[in-house]
Amino acid sequence: MAATRHTSIAPIDGGITAPTGFRSAALHCGIKAKAGALDLAVLAVDTFASMAGLFTTNLAQAAPVLVSKRHLDVTRGTGCAIVVNSGCANACTGEEGLANARRMTEEVASALGCEPEQVLVASTGVIGVALPIDRVVAGIQEACSSLAHGRGSEAAQAIMTTDPFPKEHAVRVTTPRGSFSIGAMAKGSGMIEPNMATMLGFIATDAQVAPAMLQRALAESARDTFNAITVDGECSTNDSLFAMASGNSGVVIDEELYPALLDGLLSVSRPLALGIVRGGEGATKVIAVSVYDANTVDEARQVARTIANSPLVKTAVHGADPNWGRIVAAAGRAGVRFDMQRVTVRIGGILLFENGLPHDESAARAAEILKRDTVDIEISLGTGNASATIWGCDLSAEYVRINGEYRT
Amino acid sequence: MAATRHTSIAPIDGGITAPTGFRSAALHCGIKAKAGALDLAVLAVDTFASMAGLFTTNLAQAAPVLVSKRHLDVTRGTGCAIVVNSGCANACTGEEGLANARRMTEEVASALGCEPEQVLVASTGVIGVALPIDRVVAGIQEACSSLAHGRGSEAAQAIMTTDPFPKEHAVRVTTPRGSFSIGAMAKGSGMIEPNMATMLGFIATDAQVAPAMLQRALAESARDTFNAITVDGECSTNDSLFAMASGNSGVVIDEELYPALLDGLLSVSRPLALGIVRGGEGATKVIAVSVYDANTVDEARQVARTIANSPLVKTAVHGADPNWGRIVAAAGRAGVRFDMQRVTVRIGGILLFENGLPHDESAARAAEILKRDTVDIEISLGTGNASATIWGCDLSAEYVRINGEYRT
Repeated sequence: MAATRHTSIAPIDGGITAPTGFRSAALHCGIKAKAGALDLAVLAVDTFASMAGLFTTNLAQAAPVLVSKRHLDVTRGTGCAIVVNSGCANACTGEEGLANARRMTEEVASALGCEPEQVLVASTGVIGVALPIDRVVAGIQEACSSLAHGRGSEAAQAIMTTDPFPKEHAVRVTTPRGSFSIGAMAKGSGMIEPNMATMLGFIATDAQVAPAMLQRALAESARDTFNAITVDGECSTNDSLFAMASGNSGVVIDEELYPALLDGLLSVSRPLALGIVRGGEGATKVIAVSVYDANTVDEARQVARTIANSPLVKTAVHGADPNWGRIVAAAGRAGVRFDMQRVTVRIGGILLFENGLPHDESAARAAEILKRDTVDIEISLGTGNASATIWGCDLSAEYVRINGEYRT
Repeated sequence: MAATRHTSIAPIDGGITAPTGFRSAALHCGIKAKAGALDLAVLAVDTFASMAGLFTTNLAQAAPVLVSKRHLDVTRGTGCAIVVNSGCANACTGEEGLANARRMTEEVASALGCEPEQVLVASTGVIGVALPIDRVVAGIQEACSSLAHGRGSEAAQAIMTTDPFPKEHAVRVTTPRGSFSIGAMAKGSGMIEPNMATMLGFIATDAQVAPAMLQRALAESARDTFNAITVDGECSTNDSLFAMASGNSGVVIDEELYPALLDGLLSVSRPLALGIVRGGEGATKVIAVSVYDANTVDEARQVARTIANSPLVKTAVHGADPNWGRIVAAAGRAGVRFDMQRVTVRIGGILLFENGLPHDESAARAAEILKRDTVDIEISLGTGNASATIWGCDLSAEYVRINGEYRT
């Protein structure tokens, strides 16, 4: 990227509230049963921000998704706050659920002195259960009265469900025309699959970005980060990724600086996306599946995704079994045409399959590499020049335990 | 089916060798390490038979699949025997593997006095390992010299890998123009997914059927049986379904009797397909997912398949959790258009979701039903008149154990 040659990106502290112009508050309002468990967060802009959003592709869309999409439409991407709760997805909750999602935005707007349409809303948790709206409303009022700078870490905790750890990251982007910050947080542990069907993610920046450009950068950065991960191939009813740009840094993002913004978004999104995979339900290893030499990026992605979602590949990696046969079989059912004779398969850089034949002499070395907590699987299709990477995780008995006992 | 009004179908003993004109032999030739474990079977026709085959849709096709497809082409669907081994898939084994698969057909042909092209071959087991061809050849010679009527059960055992029990079934079909028998056996436990990517299956009948009609009936019967099951959404390199018709009964299948043949094939195939699911790796329950009121059968099948393959639905059923939310979410990501407001979801006949809202008062009753060893999930899409059923199984920690430790 020649345009970003003079741009430098460095990690900073502060998570979602690292950029200037954003305040947050997080508290326990009583959605989660456990006393003191944070389950509500409000993110607010000091003035107004450009806003952008990407949403689940599932036909079944939760009330907060429907409300947030509409609000982004109505305001054409400007707003002042986001409210998010965990512990209840407010999905499959009918008219009452829609009314509750709207109510959440109304309460924030009323407390902050903006319009309800300038507030976005996100929820995560159990499907089909109504929000305890009175408690949520009381929580929103309390949160809005205690908004503060530099408290992003609490918000990152308040959006967790089965996540084993909070996920936040922030960077400072320095360009020849000044510097700006980007902070982000995300949650997501099960029901993780590419195609914006991933998780909740929130990104804030103090760069000045027009809404349309912010939407474009968000979509482009998500393609190779939040939309390139999978835990179980599932696509949720609620998943949403939001970006807000306050403009407080004074750095105006135009076409010249667009690559710097994009690099910054990629820099905060990548560790969060990988964190979601590493914190995937029952996951003990991250699997990076890279497909090279495909005809198109879409084909590369399709093969990588099929391998990353294959239960047999996932269990083999879990058991540190260098079972390239399962990788070949998964690639072969991905619905992409290629010549199996030209395919190579590598695990951790070790060539295991070539010219239609195994290299069994390397299996022992590959088995050692499979014991690491990050495993690279590389497949060359030998048909073209396109490539793609999908990040997944192994499948453990713990995934079964978590999901067989989640609600009961 | 008016045409089969005067047809009756009754189960009989004898498995694959129940029909007249077929002999079999099974033995331990030494592919499997365990002493005495049956790993080789030969099925032979007394004279000649019509033969038909369906094969894996995986791009990675094992040597026996390539050889059998070619042999069916060359002979236009006539033949005299099938040879099958377990313990080694002879897949991803290059030229040597192809030579070994051909050698197996040559040895059978030489022993039985027919052409190699009149012999079909199937293998199942580990991918990427060469067959111990000398032991296999010795085994084939011994098997061909001990072929006998009425020994189908041993063959059904010889084709097993991780299957917990052998799968065979036979019926007698009585029509106004005489009666004929159909016998069948199958194996398959992991890597099970619709689209002829399922398992090994063998069907023999003493009806007289032209090869083209046998192929047509096999494909039609497989659509709602062997191609309507899934254990893990995986599609193997080796899966094959063969049919042989000896003609010994003297009953000639023409268009008038075609429905009787089809009903007979469905009658033997359905219990074997369900047996594969019930014996699925780690499975404790069969899940029958039926989708009604879809626009097309393909759409119904697509939604049913997505639900049956959903790890979250499979783990919920395993944990007896009536989590209709996961069913709705899986349906919503199936890539089929419908209106979620018109969808109904039933588990074991109990209505759990309707008009976009749950019926939580029924959850406790549904949880009781989920403890049974067969669970019916029914979804009405409310868009048309088409329906389809896919049979799957739950996902247990045992699946992870089996597949994390299979090869190492």
